[in-house]
Amino acid sequence: MKSFFEKDAVELTPDGKELVILDQTLLPNQEKYITITTAEQLFYAITLLKVRGSHAIGISAALGLAMCMNRFETNDLRVFESEFLRVKRYLAISRPSAVDLFTDLNRMESCFYEQMSCAEDGAGAISLIKERLTAEARNIKLEKIRTCLAIAEYGFSLLKPGVTIMTYCNAGYLAVSRYGTALSPIFLAQENGYMPKVYACETRPLLQGARLTSYELGKAGVDVTLICDNMASIVMSRKKVDIIFVGADTVAANGDVINKVGTSGLAILAQHYGVPFYVLCPSQTIDKDRPTGYDVKIEERPGYEVTEMYYEKPSAPVGTKVYNPAFDVTPNALITGIITENGISK
Amino acid sequence: MKSFFEKDAVELTPDGKELVILDQTLLPNQEKYITITTAEQLFYAITLLKVRGSHAIGISAALGLAMCMNRFETNDLRVFESEFLRVKRYLAISRPSAVDLFTDLNRMESCFYEQMSCAEDGAGAISLIKERLTAEARNIKLEKIRTCLAIAEYGFSLLKPGVTIMTYCNAGYLAVSRYGTALSPIFLAQENGYMPKVYACETRPLLQGARLTSYELGKAGVDVTLICDNMASIVMSRKKVDIIFVGADTVAANGDVINKVGTSGLAILAQHYGVPFYVLCPSQTIDKDRPTGYDVKIEERPGYEVTEMYYEKPSAPVGTKVYNPAFDVTPNALITGIITENGISK
Repeated sequence: MKSFFEKDAVELTPDGKELVILDQTLLPNQEKYITITTAEQLFYAITLLKVRGSHAIGISAALGLAMCMNRFETNDLRVFESEFLRVKRYLAISRPSAVDLFTDLNRMESCFYEQMSCAEDGAGAISLIKERLTAEARNIKLEKIRTCLAIAEYGFSLLKPGVTIMTYCNAGYLAVSRYGTALSPIFLAQENGYMPKVYACETRPLLQGARLTSYELGKAGVDVTLICDNMASIVMSRKKVDIIFVGADTVAANGDVINKVGTSGLAILAQHYGVPFYVLCPSQTIDKDRPTGYDVKIEERPGYEVTEMYYEKPSAPVGTKVYNPAFDVTPNALITGIITENGISK
Repeated sequence: MKSFFEKDAVELTPDGKELVILDQTLLPNQEKYITITTAEQLFYAITLLKVRGSHAIGISAALGLAMCMNRFETNDLRVFESEFLRVKRYLAISRPSAVDLFTDLNRMESCFYEQMSCAEDGAGAISLIKERLTAEARNIKLEKIRTCLAIAEYGFSLLKPGVTIMTYCNAGYLAVSRYGTALSPIFLAQENGYMPKVYACETRPLLQGARLTSYELGKAGVDVTLICDNMASIVMSRKKVDIIFVGADTVAANGDVINKVGTSGLAILAQHYGVPFYVLCPSQTIDKDRPTGYDVKIEERPGYEVTEMYYEKPSAPVGTKVYNPAFDVTPNALITGIITENGISK
């Protein structure tokens, strides 16, 4: 499958010393790539949502950790190890709920100790570890991209020419760095001349559907219509919606899905109107250590995202209390199927 | 019941020559009353949503029609009649879907012809008609306010101290001119020391919940928490929501409710979570001539309300298609009860 974008949303430069990220907070008005050279810059890029989407966060953290170590100069392996652990622990607290962040950083740590155990002490060993870390981080990214291609094929198998799809938040190119999860079958359908029609929910308060999904699908030439989140019900009742595709931040062992707040409401509407509701994500997103979705602590974000962000003036009287959870739990009973690189399961 | 506001949201001055309206588009950042002295000003005030809410629109149109006739100078009854009909027809097309607008204007027309039929020709007759029209318009407003008081009592009878209520859009003081429909039982509960807690859905794209409901409930000292519309599901699943109160623009003969887009989705969630869902409106809102909700044409508003209004920068790429229906239909099967001044029915 071709990519509709010239550049990946997250890239490590060939020398491994700079992380280049498409700043998602400036989209769709400005396409700006920012260069990250410190752990602190990456931490804030994740916190401020310049890079977002569970998988893109994992890739950024892995590539960013390799980048930080490539820039760290020492001949003392113990100093090098302690800096590695410091940066790893620091990046791990940049965003809760994103299972990829922890999985990918842990994988980097395993790689670090595997290489360290078979190396001599000193500068040569450090140089070898840097190479291994860089290669591992690049692999993490490439594996996720291959995973997206497999997800695209399975999702595409459910579509017919002229299909109408509803999607939520952004689980596309930007959320992974290439292709995407929920959007990858749509890109493949477009490439195959299926002329898919998409309803994108704007996804308040951070408008990932308006800012990012409309932007991505528009770039790919897909016929996309933007709606407010509260219009999903009238669209399902009055228009044709054949299928709903959403992504996931975490899937619990029992198949409950933790995803952008509002996903559970959309799933309830889908069940009411009889529209099939699919969750698309890499199998890595399934967290066997969480028995149910209710074992995940829901991140609560600041109220100003609801009342002030993006607005010219506050939308509510100053001092109004706001509840702003970032995610919600969609019970597995509401989900038609979960699509990973391994196939479609329930 | 006391009003928590010093002034009504829609008022005719004592001389009957100026209509004074609290400009709802400037809320909550500015409390500005605008003076309207022509039909054109009122038309645009309705179109631009400076005055909104089916009942407040009806009151404004009735008072505005009386005001225009009070300012119209002629001694020729035929000229006066033709001006009356012109203004009435003009105001009637200012906003579709608001049943009160047509009902209240038709009532003004009946009043006009009733008075005309029993009057002599000439200036004296015109002066009498002006008086009658002004009194009739004031009555329309006062009846609606009395209706709100009765609705408040019936709604209040469903509440207990410490109750948590969810509401949608704005069906309060601003939507009627005093007390409100869906919010009036909450004001009454607050007055009675019930300490009600309210979740107000922000109601995209025009943010009536954030801008107006938070403002009204905050003024009354009610403990209100603002949420995005897509958070209603997580609030119902994780927090206590005892009851949902919404307003209505039109109720069809079979009990289907036409209200702000998103109402139907909220009703589906309420059914899923087992939360009682009540619609509060004057009995006048029930339109016996519409067999079902699907016999109402849904107003589609411009896309810029979704992508540009209130924002510093567009939320989506320029040219993105938008679907922006103003209302949706909630089938009666999803509604626990309809509360009017006559009681609670299903």
